[in-house]
Amino acid sequence: MRWSKSHLFTLKDAPNDAEIPSHKLMARAGMIKKVAPGIYTYGNLALRALRKFENIIRQELDKRGCQEVLMPMVHPAELWQETNRWKEMGDGLLKFKNRNGHDFCLGATHEEVITDYVRKDVKSYRDLPANLYQIQTKYRDEIRPRFGLMRGREFIMKDAYSFDTDEKAALVSYDLMYDAYKAIFDRLGLEYRIVEADAGNIGGSKTNEFQVLADAGEDHLMVCDTCDFAANIEVAPALIKTEKATGAALPMEAFPTPNLKSIGSLSKSLGIPENKLVKTMFFSANDGTDAANPPSKDLKAVAICLAGDDEVNPVKLKNVLGMSNPPLMLTDEEVKKTTGAWPGSCGPVGLTIPVYFDSAIEGFQNFIVGANRDAEHLKNVNIGRDFKVTKFADLRMAKPGHSCPSCQAAGRKGVYKSYRGIEVGHVFYLGTKYSKSMGATYLTQEGQPLPIEMGCYGIGVSRTVQAAIEQSHDADGIVWPHGITPFDVHMVVLDPDQEEVRQSAEVLYRELQTRGLDVFMDDRAERPGVKFKDADLLGFPIRVNIGGRGLKEGIVEMIPRKTKAMEKVKAEEATEKVLELMQLIRAGKLPAAPAKTTGAAAGAKA
Amino acid sequence: MRWSKSHLFTLKDAPNDAEIPSHKLMARAGMIKKVAPGIYTYGNLALRALRKFENIIRQELDKRGCQEVLMPMVHPAELWQETNRWKEMGDGLLKFKNRNGHDFCLGATHEEVITDYVRKDVKSYRDLPANLYQIQTKYRDEIRPRFGLMRGREFIMKDAYSFDTDEKAALVSYDLMYDAYKAIFDRLGLEYRIVEADAGNIGGSKTNEFQVLADAGEDHLMVCDTCDFAANIEVAPALIKTEKATGAALPMEAFPTPNLKSIGSLSKSLGIPENKLVKTMFFSANDGTDAANPPSKDLKAVAICLAGDDEVNPVKLKNVLGMSNPPLMLTDEEVKKTTGAWPGSCGPVGLTIPVYFDSAIEGFQNFIVGANRDAEHLKNVNIGRDFKVTKFADLRMAKPGHSCPSCQAAGRKGVYKSYRGIEVGHVFYLGTKYSKSMGATYLTQEGQPLPIEMGCYGIGVSRTVQAAIEQSHDADGIVWPHGITPFDVHMVVLDPDQEEVRQSAEVLYRELQTRGLDVFMDDRAERPGVKFKDADLLGFPIRVNIGGRGLKEGIVEMIPRKTKAMEKVKAEEATEKVLELMQLIRAGKLPAAPAKTTGAAAGAKA
Repeated sequence: MRWSKSHLFTLKDAPNDAEIPSHKLMARAGMIKKVAPGIYTYGNLALRALRKFENIIRQELDKRGCQEVLMPMVHPAELWQETNRWKEMGDGLLKFKNRNGHDFCLGATHEEVITDYVRKDVKSYRDLPANLYQIQTKYRDEIRPRFGLMRGREFIMKDAYSFDTDEKAALVSYDLMYDAYKAIFDRLGLEYRIVEADAGNIGGSKTNEFQVLADAGEDHLMVCDTCDFAANIEVAPALIKTEKATGAALPMEAFPTPNLKSIGSLSKSLGIPENKLVKTMFFSANDGTDAANPPSKDLKAVAICLAGDDEVNPVKLKNVLGMSNPPLMLTDEEVKKTTGAWPGSCGPVGLTIPVYFDSAIEGFQNFIVGANRDAEHLKNVNIGRDFKVTKFADLRMAKPGHSCPSCQAAGRKGVYKSYRGIEVGHVFYLGTKYSKSMGATYLTQEGQPLPIEMGCYGIGVSRTVQAAIEQSHDADGIVWPHGITPFDVHMVVLDPDQEEVRQSAEVLYRELQTRGLDVFMDDRAERPGVKFKDADLLGFPIRVNIGGRGLKEGIVEMIPRKTKAMEKVKAEEATEKVLELMQLIRAGKLPAAPAKTTGAAAGAKA
Repeated sequence: MRWSKSHLFTLKDAPNDAEIPSHKLMARAGMIKKVAPGIYTYGNLALRALRKFENIIRQELDKRGCQEVLMPMVHPAELWQETNRWKEMGDGLLKFKNRNGHDFCLGATHEEVITDYVRKDVKSYRDLPANLYQIQTKYRDEIRPRFGLMRGREFIMKDAYSFDTDEKAALVSYDLMYDAYKAIFDRLGLEYRIVEADAGNIGGSKTNEFQVLADAGEDHLMVCDTCDFAANIEVAPALIKTEKATGAALPMEAFPTPNLKSIGSLSKSLGIPENKLVKTMFFSANDGTDAANPPSKDLKAVAICLAGDDEVNPVKLKNVLGMSNPPLMLTDEEVKKTTGAWPGSCGPVGLTIPVYFDSAIEGFQNFIVGANRDAEHLKNVNIGRDFKVTKFADLRMAKPGHSCPSCQAAGRKGVYKSYRGIEVGHVFYLGTKYSKSMGATYLTQEGQPLPIEMGCYGIGVSRTVQAAIEQSHDADGIVWPHGITPFDVHMVVLDPDQEEVRQSAEVLYRELQTRGLDVFMDDRAERPGVKFKDADLLGFPIRVNIGGRGLKEGIVEMIPRKTKAMEKVKAEEATEKVLELMQLIRAGKLPAAPAKTTGAAAGAKA
């Protein structure tokens, strides 16, 4: 592509709503332009990256026997009503009526449509397994779209769905997709982790997330410093336990704690570290899914006790309580009504509601809790004697330094480190949630009708492209991973007004293309400084400066974007040298050379 | 692709709503499955055809300097309000509110979005020209979707938009796209015509349609039997004129015509051929675009006179009247109110409304018309003396046998033949309709701001795939044109239970793929008859039967789908023979051999 013939405009300044580097860089590089909040037009460079990624996905899935189809973006309400998700999905599912008054929605995900597709054809066990995928534009009516493509409303996804006869076969499909995803993300050249995650309300019981590591990631990950174990903090086990106390239980007694409403102030006043104090939090186990019994009528309040310096993990709590969404905390008024005291003076003693106790403090003895009377606490409190525990469970947020469960089981010493991640893929074993409600059955060899076992598997295609930039950029611009870079080589023609430079550049441009590289040529009548800045911003893996002064000496300059280590190469060897460098980059073997001064040496006049 | 591992199900019967062969065949071949009226899921075979076509389009456009982008499917109302098409598009534009109450629509076309995209960047004449395209899913809320992908609601289009400094440059872009479309449709291997067409209400003044010839086509075409001229009947000039009468004008007189309300009965009763009688039709020139002056308030009635055996062409009339949509005929009541008589007894004499006269009967003298009194006609009526003509114009439908205008101008004798066509592409010169209303300007070299000159260019991608089938099929199934066939070769493995057959088939399967062919292998445990039927239905260009009996003789059978002329080839030469045959097919040089009996000779047992 020749810049002079292209509709490509870089921007000095990112738009005001761009908060994170990747969003700023994509906008500045002319890759995305906002049409409405969360809705973008992709410029040619973005599309090239998207297409390369899509092709990687296709290759890895086709190779494994998956079959591509294409489902519509407009779905009739009837299908979503069959699974009750027409209601359950809430306002994120954009609904509308067509001109004939029929209800439709924009596809936010395609479990219903694909299950309908498959049930029309599959009759017998002989027709299974099937593994179908599509790469398609989806719409979710995000209430607050932000971060560009990272949390947009309209986005491109690859979604795949597997159909099997039984759970064992379904888990084989799950593993196949897991491996496919590993292969796909490996080819991108990005640093990512496969993490344990919560199955959410999509159904099913087994799931993993593929997370690209990046500081601006919305997800918080716990990653073992020793083994492969990694988990979304939502589900990361928090294993360190206090040792079992062995002393005698002392008599419980109340003591006044005026103005000591926080664990911090209590700890300070009593001289006891926060992690030795027990705090009590209150949640509603009523998630409002039963219309006849709303939270306003019955809070289903529960108390959670945990160490003073720990945080309740709402996803763990959700799973312990068997809810479909994380529970909400009670308001101060609700706590007062439930316990008799305002928050800060509450505890488990004397409560009539269920008390869940974090496993980390299962061994505590003679501890301090709120008295359920304002400005009063109790000391020498003991489990069993003074209150009943409904259940001990891991209810807290894991922290860096906690033991890795995988290492602990194997007798190793690995501990968590904390990372931020961008979720770019997930694999789900769904079971029969959709096939049961939609009547997608098959006949077994014995002629028995059974619901089909399903799995679903997503990759955020547009999101991954931005995640790649979020992970891989520097102060000057994008540093494209080789797998999805829009172009491999960025040729900077330094003296496009000189006929011989133009000719030499043209020859090199064609040679590199003939050898299979995607080549971008900046042949604009701009100053070298402007072109170098733009080359750094666009960030293709190899820059080649070709200009009059250099060509007189018989050389061109070759600069890997990542290291900026400039190398002068003989003009006639340029193609080979670029190919060699590209091979090193693709193999991940680019030497981490000290950055030398790049720039105008090859021929710039300005 | 191996059938045994694929989610592919052919149907014996087409769904009830499939009216035309291509719709039936696509449904029976498992290529499309209805999700809602006009909304389909594309199976893998359909997607392969679509992708091949898309790649042909990309290659031809990229080669000509066009640049691919991707615009969203959800558009904010504000953009469409700028051009007033938010109202003008009517109910075909599907509108809805998002969760925040903002107005959006589903993209039915993208002039507004692309003009917005370009105006954000283009500042000066230096930034032009630009030619941007996308291949994208669109939605039009068709009131009565039918014919499968031919008139669906959700469909895939390639839409391109050109941006130039002036009309001359814009017409260069127009010609470039015209040539690109020729190249694209030539590569498909389909019979098509480039026809003159009406610019409709999209704006602009120059347009051509690309029409695939097929009996089930919704468009009616007039095609010259001698030269390249072709036109949609909407605009096809109707050139044959009656010779100028030379006799004297006789005195006009009324005569009773009880019960003679149609031209047919009048002709029969008077013994005068229909083409010598003059009929008068009434239309409303008020198309309701001025809300302050609706047709209910002011009909703006006009009378149209033409020969008794001709039909009014509403599109020609629309253009003569300068309306944006074809005018509606008056109801009988409105005619009575306007003329004093019911239809059947009306004519131009004594009317106070404008009278438009078809050029074909400009030379008529002493003719018969309705008297504007029920059951009465006038004879010896003459133009000028008895009534005033507002305008003579070509207002009638052209017919087969009419002179070709291009031939007439060149002194040739070509005449129209009638064809049906499926519109698969169009090119439009738009002028400044969108750039003016949206403020998309550039600065000339002299610093003067001018609106950008635009063109728009569409190809119905999904529609073309079906049109190809509509044109190219036989009683047994699809006969794929080589350019977009999902697979090149259909291998029928006749004895998949025999290990040596399976092995030989596998070797051939891989060899053909290695040589660049797309190969489909029917390795199911089905009877040969079932497999042959399915092969004919799916219709890939070359079938290869490989079975135990044939292999014992060292042969496989090779059958081109189009001619069904079976040829036995040595098994070890099969790959070369298939490649040779494919080359013939691609070159359009497949010999039209008499169909021999195909079938089970190569080894079938059943």
